[in-house]
Amino acid sequence: MASSLLHCSDKLPFMDVETILHMKEGLGETSYAQNSSLQKRGMDTLKSLITNSATDVYISQMPERFTVADLGCSSGPNALCLAEDIVGSIGRVCSRSSQPPPEFSVLLNDLPTNDFNTIFFSLPEFTDRLEAAAKTDEWGRPMVFLSGVPGSFYGRLFPRKSVHFICSCSSLHWLSQVPPGLFDETTSRPINKGKMYISSTSPLAVPMAYLRQFQRDFSLFLKSRAAEVVPGGRMVLAMLGRQTEGYIDRRTTFLWELLSESFAALVSQGLVEQEKVDAYNVPFYAPSIQEVEEEVRREGSFRLDYVQTYEINLSSSGDAKEDGRTVSMAIRAIQESMLSHHFGADIVDALFHRYTELVTESMEREEVKSVQIGVVLTKL
Amino acid sequence: MASSLLHCSDKLPFMDVETILHMKEGLGETSYAQNSSLQKRGMDTLKSLITNSATDVYISQMPERFTVADLGCSSGPNALCLAEDIVGSIGRVCSRSSQPPPEFSVLLNDLPTNDFNTIFFSLPEFTDRLEAAAKTDEWGRPMVFLSGVPGSFYGRLFPRKSVHFICSCSSLHWLSQVPPGLFDETTSRPINKGKMYISSTSPLAVPMAYLRQFQRDFSLFLKSRAAEVVPGGRMVLAMLGRQTEGYIDRRTTFLWELLSESFAALVSQGLVEQEKVDAYNVPFYAPSIQEVEEEVRREGSFRLDYVQTYEINLSSSGDAKEDGRTVSMAIRAIQESMLSHHFGADIVDALFHRYTELVTESMEREEVKSVQIGVVLTKL
Repeated sequence: MASSLLHCSDKLPFMDVETILHMKEGLGETSYAQNSSLQKRGMDTLKSLITNSATDVYISQMPERFTVADLGCSSGPNALCLAEDIVGSIGRVCSRSSQPPPEFSVLLNDLPTNDFNTIFFSLPEFTDRLEAAAKTDEWGRPMVFLSGVPGSFYGRLFPRKSVHFICSCSSLHWLSQVPPGLFDETTSRPINKGKMYISSTSPLAVPMAYLRQFQRDFSLFLKSRAAEVVPGGRMVLAMLGRQTEGYIDRRTTFLWELLSESFAALVSQGLVEQEKVDAYNVPFYAPSIQEVEEEVRREGSFRLDYVQTYEINLSSSGDAKEDGRTVSMAIRAIQESMLSHHFGADIVDALFHRYTELVTESMEREEVKSVQIGVVLTKL
Repeated sequence: MASSLLHCSDKLPFMDVETILHMKEGLGETSYAQNSSLQKRGMDTLKSLITNSATDVYISQMPERFTVADLGCSSGPNALCLAEDIVGSIGRVCSRSSQPPPEFSVLLNDLPTNDFNTIFFSLPEFTDRLEAAAKTDEWGRPMVFLSGVPGSFYGRLFPRKSVHFICSCSSLHWLSQVPPGLFDETTSRPINKGKMYISSTSPLAVPMAYLRQFQRDFSLFLKSRAAEVVPGGRMVLAMLGRQTEGYIDRRTTFLWELLSESFAALVSQGLVEQEKVDAYNVPFYAPSIQEVEEEVRREGSFRLDYVQTYEINLSSSGDAKEDGRTVSMAIRAIQESMLSHHFGADIVDALFHRYTELVTESMEREEVKSVQIGVVLTKL
């Protein structure tokens, strides 16, 4: 992995997101599988939008084989639950109209470094649950063919016109790379000092660099999917976003600000060099509705049927200590691969110890929310 | 895992092959990835048969999307090389006739416990190699969509009529379960004492139980594939087999005999109980050509185009010590998951220490060969 990071003071640090970013593997205490309840809440908000959209596509096309893809499926219990909901929903529709259900092809996609083994290990249970549901709803044993598709969704993943329905939850806010414009062109010095994402102290070049990267990535995403989705097929996309036109929506930047603050504490203790913090930026962007709409319009292959923002309450239990720990562990499961790569694995415990304290303190003062954008697109 | 083995003296020991059998994961010294050169040699023998058959199917059908499946792909460097050969071969045919190559869908199948992560990690190199080959042969950048399909091939894996070409190397000699008839019906005592596969001392009920299990499994395999392969599509299957009509072909039973002998040594040292050895049988069967032909004829969906046996020389380097170690490590990578499950992980080192000695001694006395059956089938 070390070769993917060129970290010399006179060169741009380069992080190959495709080979490094992955949710913490396995089933242990700090794994994504054990720390993805926030993402699950995001999915639950959109669950009926997802199952209704998928069912609509099925009803309008009635194919013998219905192909569904989940992009950025990750490796925890969330990975299979959307597929389960969709299969169940279409199965019930078929049962009501006394039609045999289609064969389902379920394609689970994530980067090649994702822990697919953990998903596959749980496949027998998934099959058992589907069979039990089918029995209860009396729509016969479903034929569900599941496969794992490794690769970046910022590029082609599936054969031409082969997919009826795509969903992607909590993934499209991850960019394909850290935007290249975050270092001064002549001196190569970092311009977003002390911060790792767009902040109120960032010069304008920072949000501009992030926006350009989002535009390039999201446009490539749409172009790739346009080749793969059948005409009339749909996509439901959900990602973290902003409710403001300005680049800062506190509900989105807040958790990154606290991570920068946690690093400042480690720097003052001499555990981390300031220079390393200055050079670290996350490959993340939370767009506004307008920015999403603009790329959909520009790319031109999809009709925008629906777009909406939602608030997700992160202070869900009301107990600041419990909620603080949940949020901190979630961010750790997501960020650990990249942080370890840039700073070394030995700072991670200290960092998240401080981070948990800061998140908990904030939650003691106020309810913390995040903003999600939900989009439904139909292939023309 | 422990719950999958009910080992009580008055009950049948039951091993759930689907959740236990897997080639040793990862890339370490005892991994399958590092110890699968024998299987590679088997594949190389059939390589031109595989690429020619796949290319013939492509030429006769010219689909826009050509779907290839490798059943029992395992997790080492072998997993991707058949796909690479097939894509390259069809790419060159297209180049010669100035046609654009099809999109390729490559489906890699193995049991859900297979180490798919290790295959997926090597995906970027696979893509690089394909692109380099395409450049050299001037047939343009191939669109190859790869996915991992977890599941037993003794059942449906893919949607109806969705696959053009299937290959399976060194996998179909694994049965779906240890044959149920290896225990006395009234006393539940093991009938194949001291042995783990058909041996010259086995009562006739042992080969009969193995043959019945093979017939059930292979017939289910053919029926499942019949639903999935398009008419005119082909399968190339290779498995260990026999050149004799009797149940014992020394070249097939030989390595199991030596493993039984190694266990006898451990029993005499008090490291393993005789009762445990008596109750251990491998879910393996090496059929004869006639037994394969018979099931193909009985199932009726495929035409048998070709069937042949091959000898593979296991004494390939001529150095008995080196060859003995290669064979012993290969058997360990294949058998370790099942042996650990039945006997506990702590006997494995001692067992294979003795096994390596026995295999090497045999190789000092004579050339050791194994027998493989290659079959080409066309879907009617």
